[in-house]
Amino acid sequence: MSGLFITVEGLEGVGKSTNLAFVEQWLINKGLEVETTREPGGTALAEDIRELLLAKRDEPVSQTCELLMMFAARAQHLSQKINPWLDQGKCVLSDRFTDATYAYQGGGREMDVSIINQLEGIVQNGLQPDFTLLLDAPAEIGLARIQSRGFTDRIEQEKVEFFDRAREGYLARAKAQPNRMHIIDASKTLEQVQTQIDATLTAFFKAREQA
Amino acid sequence: MSGLFITVEGLEGVGKSTNLAFVEQWLINKGLEVETTREPGGTALAEDIRELLLAKRDEPVSQTCELLMMFAARAQHLSQKINPWLDQGKCVLSDRFTDATYAYQGGGREMDVSIINQLEGIVQNGLQPDFTLLLDAPAEIGLARIQSRGFTDRIEQEKVEFFDRAREGYLARAKAQPNRMHIIDASKTLEQVQTQIDATLTAFFKAREQA
Ligand SMILES: Nc1ncnc2c1ncn2[C@@H]1O[C@H](COP(=O)(O)OP(=O)(O)OP(=O)(O)O)[C@@H](O)[C@H]1O
Ligand SMILES: Nc1ncnc2c1ncn2[C@@H]1O[C@H](COP(=O)(O)OP(=O)(O)OP(=O)(O)O)[C@@H](O)[C@H]1O
Ligand SMILES: [Mg+2]
Ligand SMILES: [Mg+2]
Repeated sequence: MSGLFITVEGLEGVGKSTNLAFVEQWLINKGLEVETTREPGGTALAEDIRELLLAKRDEPVSQTCELLMMFAARAQHLSQKINPWLDQGKCVLSDRFTDATYAYQGGGREMDVSIINQLEGIVQNGLQPDFTLLLDAPAEIGLARIQSRGFTDRIEQEKVEFFDRAREGYLARAKAQPNRMHIIDASKTLEQVQTQIDATLTAFFKAREQA
Repeated sequence: MSGLFITVEGLEGVGKSTNLAFVEQWLINKGLEVETTREPGGTALAEDIRELLLAKRDEPVSQTCELLMMFAARAQHLSQKINPWLDQGKCVLSDRFTDATYAYQGGGREMDVSIINQLEGIVQNGLQPDFTLLLDAPAEIGLARIQSRGFTDRIEQEKVEFFDRAREGYLARAKAQPNRMHIIDASKTLEQVQTQIDATLTAFFKAREQA
């Protein structure tokens, strides 16, 4: 039996972690056995790779190195956690997955998308999320929400134009894959955001149960 | 002006580091400006990736994760060091490069070689070493030479059959690319090994100068 793979995507500070907890509770109330995880990361080794990816350093990080490290962490996460959980029939809920790579490395860094496609093929062996919530808002909104954190990592340091391109990357993917990716207006109040998420999840499960 | 890219390959303990110093001195005597480096590694970030690769951990490391980390380190090494040095017309001498990936991940771990080909294409953009010394000996010989070190890393822990397959991987590549790869019998005494290396380098530069 194969489980259900749900991802939550969006720019920095848009509300992914906050709403991941809401989605997790929603799925548990629905009676599902949920495993919650995040990318990059999700295993000890993948979290070590995440640390290398996000550390600020004097040395410029080559775009290809960054991209390969993202997929290295993902390969480990898939083989040690996600694939076994799905094989056990569980519901896997991840704070980001490959859509973020298309948005950040493809959109933000303007890397050749065919390279991302190749790596996706090597690492995922055809696996795609069943359902993705894209929390969408102008970059400035999320960046303002996390300003009080004080600390910014290597990627959060990028200029706002980088995040504008990443947002366009996300929206282009959502437009190309409308059955899987659901755009939520994350610029609204948290209550309004969660009303949208509830409606979208309800519709997804309704369609799934009728299929 | 483009420089010269020379690599030294072979199994654990076969004598790569020892003979790298010999080759470096040989090239300096020849009047070349030499930059010596190693893989995986060669930059601060790439050395951090090396550490993750070689650390022993409870978590099994997925083959795809290992392969992508190797190429991530290589992408960084190329962009920050090897390509700039070659652009400056220098002679770059590396303790291992991509032949080791074909030998260890392709031969040793029996991974699909077409995946290694794809990653090589993404990362190297056509770059190949100009000249490679393959220090060849049965796996047991090198492993015996480093036994007194006491410490073994995650890859050195593999069974001898793994290194037998890696050796076959190296030899198959040398057979397929005889103009670039030169097999040295590394089971002989150090003096005999260095006599072979000297003759091979002399022949390479003679052919190059006549071309
Ligand atoms: N709809 C909202 N309106 C106002 N504030 C919000 C909203 N959603 C989340 N926040 C607040 O914004 C901040 C960032 O939220 P959160 O940490 O969930 O974002 P994130 O997308 O996970 O960020 P990161 O990309 O850094 O992981 C938190 O302080 C959170 O309480
Ligand atoms: N031809 C040889 N005969 C005997 N001993 C040798 C020979 N070449 C090297 N050694 C010794 O074998 C040991 C391993 O050599 P070296 O460190 O150069 O190998 P290596 O290939 O770089 O190993 P590693 O794969 O661990 O980096 C050293 O103690 C070295 O002095
Ligand atoms: Mg978060
Ligand atoms: Mg050595």
